[in-house]
Amino acid sequence: MADASNFDIKRPGEEDEVHQATSKALVNGISSVNPGWFSEFSPMWPGEAHSLKVEKMLFQGESEYQNIMIFQSATCGKVFVLDGVIQATERDACSYQEMIAHLPLCSIPNPKKVFVIGGGRGGLLREVARHSSVEQIDICEIDGMVVEVCKQFFPDLAAWYDDPRVTLHVGDGAAFLNAVPECTYDAVIVDSSDPLGPAQHLFEKPFFESVAKALRPGGVVCTQAETIWLHMHIIEDIVSHCRQIFKGSVNYAWTTVPTYPSGVIGFLLCSTGGQAVDFRNPVNPIEDNDSKNVPLKFYNKEIHSASFCLPSFAKKVIDSKSK
Amino acid sequence: MADASNFDIKRPGEEDEVHQATSKALVNGISSVNPGWFSEFSPMWPGEAHSLKVEKMLFQGESEYQNIMIFQSATCGKVFVLDGVIQATERDACSYQEMIAHLPLCSIPNPKKVFVIGGGRGGLLREVARHSSVEQIDICEIDGMVVEVCKQFFPDLAAWYDDPRVTLHVGDGAAFLNAVPECTYDAVIVDSSDPLGPAQHLFEKPFFESVAKALRPGGVVCTQAETIWLHMHIIEDIVSHCRQIFKGSVNYAWTTVPTYPSGVIGFLLCSTGGQAVDFRNPVNPIEDNDSKNVPLKFYNKEIHSASFCLPSFAKKVIDSKSK
Repeated sequence: MADASNFDIKRPGEEDEVHQATSKALVNGISSVNPGWFSEFSPMWPGEAHSLKVEKMLFQGESEYQNIMIFQSATCGKVFVLDGVIQATERDACSYQEMIAHLPLCSIPNPKKVFVIGGGRGGLLREVARHSSVEQIDICEIDGMVVEVCKQFFPDLAAWYDDPRVTLHVGDGAAFLNAVPECTYDAVIVDSSDPLGPAQHLFEKPFFESVAKALRPGGVVCTQAETIWLHMHIIEDIVSHCRQIFKGSVNYAWTTVPTYPSGVIGFLLCSTGGQAVDFRNPVNPIEDNDSKNVPLKFYNKEIHSASFCLPSFAKKVIDSKSK
Repeated sequence: MADASNFDIKRPGEEDEVHQATSKALVNGISSVNPGWFSEFSPMWPGEAHSLKVEKMLFQGESEYQNIMIFQSATCGKVFVLDGVIQATERDACSYQEMIAHLPLCSIPNPKKVFVIGGGRGGLLREVARHSSVEQIDICEIDGMVVEVCKQFFPDLAAWYDDPRVTLHVGDGAAFLNAVPECTYDAVIVDSSDPLGPAQHLFEKPFFESVAKALRPGGVVCTQAETIWLHMHIIEDIVSHCRQIFKGSVNYAWTTVPTYPSGVIGFLLCSTGGQAVDFRNPVNPIEDNDSKNVPLKFYNKEIHSASFCLPSFAKKVIDSKSK
C-alpha cells in the first residue's frame, strides 16, 4: 500500500492569482486555456463548474440586457447561454419546459388565459399550446434580441410564436402584469433566469403581489425557484413572500435538469384564494391532441405528483416557512 | 442588435490536438492548466465535465486496483475519488447512501442479515445499522486500501466498521457471494463504481445469478444502476438480466446526487420469488433509534415512493424490458 501523503495544492499567496487567472481565462465561459470547451462559473455556485465541449459556436452577441450565446455542443445538442449561464440544452430542456408548463396547467380545470414571462426560445409556448382549452397566451420577454436569435437558431420551437393564440410583448413582464386588469389570467408561468441580472425583481415581493392581482380567484402561478442543494436561502425568501401574498396553496416542486447547477431545479406553485387547488393531484390530464406537437418526453401524471416530494433537509425548511 | 456571427471554434485538424492536450493536462482529473481545480472527464460522459475547486489535497495513491484520491473541496466538503471519478462528497453523499440502504431495507419486514458490496467509506454501513432488526452485516470491499484510507480521512463514517454486527471481508464480493450457502441473506446492497474498472462484473448476468442464490425467498437486492440521462443502454441490459433471474419484482428508482454525472443516479431493486415485495410502498419505516446515529438528512417515506416515478422517456424503455 502506498504511503498517505499530505500536500497543499494551493501554495501560500497563490489563491488570488488562481482566481484572477480563472476569470481572465474565461470570456462568458469560453475558456482560452481549455480550448473548445464552455465552462460555467458563477458566484451562485462557487467552487464548482460544469463544462461542455463546443463543436461549433453559432452566435455570440451583446443585447441591451445581457450576453447571448448559442453553440452546438458535442453531446447536448444546441446550447442557449445568457451571461455565461446555460439556460437550455436540446438534450434536457424537455424536463424543465414540460414541468414548468404542466405542473400549473394540469392542476386546474380548463385553463383559458395564460401569461408567460421569459421563455424566449419558444419551447415553453409549445407546452402551453398542448392544452386545447387554452385560448390566449400572452408572452412577455424583456430582451427582443433573445426572440430574434432563437427564431434563427431554434426555428422548430420559435414556430410556436405563430400559433394564433400567442401574442408576444417585448418588455418587462412585471410592468405588463401591473397594467392588466385584475383577475385577467387563469395561470402565470415565470420562466426566469437567476436573480442576478435582468430577472432579479422576479424574485421579489412586489412582483408576486402583481402576479396575485392579475390572477383570477383560484388561478395559479408557477415560477422558477432555484435548487434545494445550493439556494435554500433564496427559496426560503420566496416561500415566505408567497405564503403572505397567496391565499390558496403554496407548494414547492422540483425536477432533474442535468445541465443546471446541482442537476435539479425547483418551482414554486401558488394559487390565489377561491376554488382550492391541490397541486399534488392534477385534475386536468394532458393530451397530445395537436398534430404539430412532438410527444411529451418527460411529463406524466406520476412524475407530477412525485415532484412535490422533498428530501427531509429541504422539507423541514420549506414546511417551516409554509405554515 | 448585434449581427449574428457564425464561426467555428474548432479549427480544421485541431480536434486531435485538443483531445491530446486535455488528456495530457489532466492526471486523474487534477488539471495543470487550471491549477487548483479537479475536473472529471470520462468516456462514460463524453463532451462534458464537472469541476470542483480543490482547497487541499489530502491523499493520492495507487492501490492494486485503482487510483485513490481524497481532497478537501471549497464547497462540497471532503471528496472521495476513484480512478478520476467522484464517488462521494460530504455535501451530497446523504442522498445516495440513505436511498441505496433504505429503499431495500424499508421494503421488507425485519431485515436481519445484510450483505454489502463496496461502500468502503462506511457511510452505507451507518445507514444499514440504523435498522434495529439487523443482526449481521457482511461487507465485501475489493480494495483494502480504500478501507484503510477512509479510516484515516472519514473517521466518523469508518467508525461503523466497529459496530459489533459488522464483519469486513477484503475481496471480491461476487466470489464471496458464490461461496455462501443459498438463502443466506435478507438483503444485498451493491454500492459499485461504474462498469469500467474493478466493478465491471457487478453489472453482468452471472453476478446477479449469484445474488439471487444468496438471497432467501422474498429477499431483496438494491444495486447502483447508473443514470437515465446518459446510460439507458446499460440500464436496459441490467433490467433484462434481472427480469430473467429474479422471480419477484424488478423496479428502477432514482435520486439526485449533484456531483454525479447528470446529477442523478439510479438503483435497480429486485426481489426473489416467495413473499411478494412491493418496493413502492415501504412496509418497514425507519427509526432514528441509535444514539450514535446522525439524523436522516434525505430519506423519508414520501421520497421513497416518489423515487420509483420515472420520466416518460425512461419509463417507456424500462417498462418494455420489465414485462
